[in-house]
Amino acid sequence: MRVGVLGTGMVGQGQASRLVSLGHEVMMGSRAAGNEKAVAWASGASPRASEGTFADAAAFGEMVVNATNGEGSIEALAAAGAGNLAGKVLVDISNPLDHSGGFPPRLFVCNTDSLGEQIQRAFPEARVVKTMNTVNINVQVDPSVIPGRHTMFLCGNDDAAKADVRALLLSYGWPDEDVMDLGDITGSRAMEMNIAMWLRAASTLNNWGINIKIVP
Amino acid sequence: MRVGVLGTGMVGQGQASRLVSLGHEVMMGSRAAGNEKAVAWASGASPRASEGTFADAAAFGEMVVNATNGEGSIEALAAAGAGNLAGKVLVDISNPLDHSGGFPPRLFVCNTDSLGEQIQRAFPEARVVKTMNTVNINVQVDPSVIPGRHTMFLCGNDDAAKADVRALLLSYGWPDEDVMDLGDITGSRAMEMNIAMWLRAASTLNNWGINIKIVP
Repeated sequence: MRVGVLGTGMVGQGQASRLVSLGHEVMMGSRAAGNEKAVAWASGASPRASEGTFADAAAFGEMVVNATNGEGSIEALAAAGAGNLAGKVLVDISNPLDHSGGFPPRLFVCNTDSLGEQIQRAFPEARVVKTMNTVNINVQVDPSVIPGRHTMFLCGNDDAAKADVRALLLSYGWPDEDVMDLGDITGSRAMEMNIAMWLRAASTLNNWGINIKIVP
Repeated sequence: MRVGVLGTGMVGQGQASRLVSLGHEVMMGSRAAGNEKAVAWASGASPRASEGTFADAAAFGEMVVNATNGEGSIEALAAAGAGNLAGKVLVDISNPLDHSGGFPPRLFVCNTDSLGEQIQRAFPEARVVKTMNTVNINVQVDPSVIPGRHTMFLCGNDDAAKADVRALLLSYGWPDEDVMDLGDITGSRAMEMNIAMWLRAASTLNNWGINIKIVP
């Protein structure tokens, strides 16, 4: 599969490297082609790795991963181009974090709306699936780094898109029974607000590799 | 121990009954003495059960449990009387739920503040400990209704008060290793925002007896 990964930070690099390791062709997108981190990643990763602009990466991908900072996500996706996203699965990992007030960051949208919903509204032809934003990148792409069972969430309005993302998660090692579909894209509210507990518990334990398990 | 339980709903009744069953003397408080539900509870529960006004119950208790609806909590505690709460452990189980927009309820405070903090600010001499708001009443008072391990949170500014509440939780059956101290009262933000995931996951599973486990 060809995947466009938007974002050159830890999440973008981790996702892109994991995808390449699974045999996918991956283009990392950034604001401008030739981004230092993207070039370094692409040159070191694999012949299947490349880099370009947000638009290049979105056009390249059959699936597109939004791994940009939440505050810049709408702008990055606009640069990627609505036409390049239309009809494609858009895996949204972003969190609406505002770090301007120090730690802990506040959410710049929550409660009655979410960044996942904002993205779906801004790009109505993209098939947005919110997932993986509830854990750090190491856990996202390899759940076995945490012993025992724990839960990965996804939500979105398009069932076929969610099936594709579930398959991606399974290829990352998530057990099918631990992947929980929270319904339509409004599930993003719960998934993004969960960052408050994640941050508090992680800082309490001084362990940023935690997850939650839904225990019925 | 003498405990004042403020609130006559499911949470108040469940807490009060559990406390009585553990041998404590419990007064259930409501807006006006003679509240039908409070009288029915007190007459049926035990010789150790009684009822009265919010102020009666707060004055009676060595420990006070806020089991009122979140929207009415500050008013109920004002009726209970700051003087009757001063120096006492105030176990705050409330959630800041606004049901006016239908399901799911929204939070009337979140992100950069919380109801637990509002209560602590409004009653600075009360030793507020936020706890148990993350699960339903059946789970609150008997964690064994959910098989396996799962997490109970608490937070507050007063370490001795938190130790008292931890002891209460242990008497309810919570294993010490599953009771997680999230630090000062600002931990209420995470605990109250967690209701969004709880509501979403519970409605998805059609199981309102769920909890989360922090998995390190």
